[in-house]
Amino acid sequence: MKILSIDSSGLVASVAVIDDDILIAEYTICYKKTHSQTLVPMMDEIRRMTDLDLDSIDAIAVAKGPGSFTGLRIGSATVKGLGLALDKPIIPVPTVDGLAYRCYGTDKLVCPLMDARRSQVYTGIYEFLKKEEGAGLLYSLHVIKAQCAVPIEEILKVLGDIGREVIFLGDGVPVFQEKIAELLKVPYSFAPAHMRLQSAAAVAVRARELYEQGVFEPAAAHQPEYLRLSQAERERLEAGQ
Amino acid sequence: MKILSIDSSGLVASVAVIDDDILIAEYTICYKKTHSQTLVPMMDEIRRMTDLDLDSIDAIAVAKGPGSFTGLRIGSATVKGLGLALDKPIIPVPTVDGLAYRCYGTDKLVCPLMDARRSQVYTGIYEFLKKEEGAGLLYSLHVIKAQCAVPIEEILKVLGDIGREVIFLGDGVPVFQEKIAELLKVPYSFAPAHMRLQSAAAVAVRARELYEQGVFEPAAAHQPEYLRLSQAERERLEAGQ
Repeated sequence: MKILSIDSSGLVASVAVIDDDILIAEYTICYKKTHSQTLVPMMDEIRRMTDLDLDSIDAIAVAKGPGSFTGLRIGSATVKGLGLALDKPIIPVPTVDGLAYRCYGTDKLVCPLMDARRSQVYTGIYEFLKKEEGAGLLYSLHVIKAQCAVPIEEILKVLGDIGREVIFLGDGVPVFQEKIAELLKVPYSFAPAHMRLQSAAAVAVRARELYEQGVFEPAAAHQPEYLRLSQAERERLEAGQ
Repeated sequence: MKILSIDSSGLVASVAVIDDDILIAEYTICYKKTHSQTLVPMMDEIRRMTDLDLDSIDAIAVAKGPGSFTGLRIGSATVKGLGLALDKPIIPVPTVDGLAYRCYGTDKLVCPLMDARRSQVYTGIYEFLKKEEGAGLLYSLHVIKAQCAVPIEEILKVLGDIGREVIFLGDGVPVFQEKIAELLKVPYSFAPAHMRLQSAAAVAVRARELYEQGVFEPAAAHQPEYLRLSQAERERLEAGQ
């Protein structure tokens, strides 16, 4: 199964193509340019470099949210446009699940941290469970706490109560590092640079599993998942309008 | 510390830039084009997209071998040229160690498998050892069996004797999958697509550690490490010349 995937949920812009177990291409940038400047040129660069026929793609995966509102809108608009033009289904992948996949197969808990501003973090708690399959083992993602927007103290409390070693990753690491050192009493580590931030390849691998579980939708129906109200919506509510 | 890194040891061509704990860019292609067609254009694409000033780089890392002789020569020639022009040191990273870094922090043994043809595999056996460091844990790579070219049966025998769960990765997975199922009696799994093949980002993260241990060299002194003789050298020896 061939999947084109993108993640534009944070500062990172990432595009990948997988074909079953092979990563045909991945291009990831963590730079201050906006995703509207980077995402489509990066996709076109990959297409050109690997002589990719877009019609040969079976589905298009996207980190559906949470994340930067503008980043998510650019990502969703891009995959909707592609999906409509190519008549391919969209596989929406929870952003935090995609991040957790960077640590596939670990025996530790995985806790992605995305800086959500306003004293909150987009986060979740995950583990990988072993299952036998023919010759060799497979690991499947088990969601202990589904992605959510909470104060950092709240997620650290849950981790402390579970009491197992944790790997943190995501752009929230430098933001919440001091709080973690102060409040968390279980052993923990931070994912290194090559596993730290969003990766469209990890999104694609998760997407393939979701597709097999029937999780996909027509391009016209796809919407990002913000997890909370935008500033404009919040202000309108507060003004009682 | 800012590191530009490349891996052209196999079918994969991969270029990355890390700046301390941040992956600024990574571009990876697994496609039939030769590295002389892909590597420098990919590097230039990254440079352009991230407004990278090559003079700001502190060192250049390369997967030094083993691997495809032609791939290694193109990679080494490229970093030597860059290193000489920019007057930057080269950090030579054992290819198999770089592959092992894709599974950073795992509690399992890591056994990369690169198809070396002639009934051999380029491989090694690794584990990650925990060490406390300030707040939080770090993991360090421990080489149980250094990279080598051996028959697949030999490395499976060693893994069986150690008796711990193993993760296999690398382009040797599809080649040796049946042999593994037939001969290996310990539990094992295969790394998924996004962690399966070479990644210049993983090479860069390993390179940073090696640099701190004093492992680097002037560009003029750099040479790839083939681990065995080339076909031409072998034939000359066999002919007694």
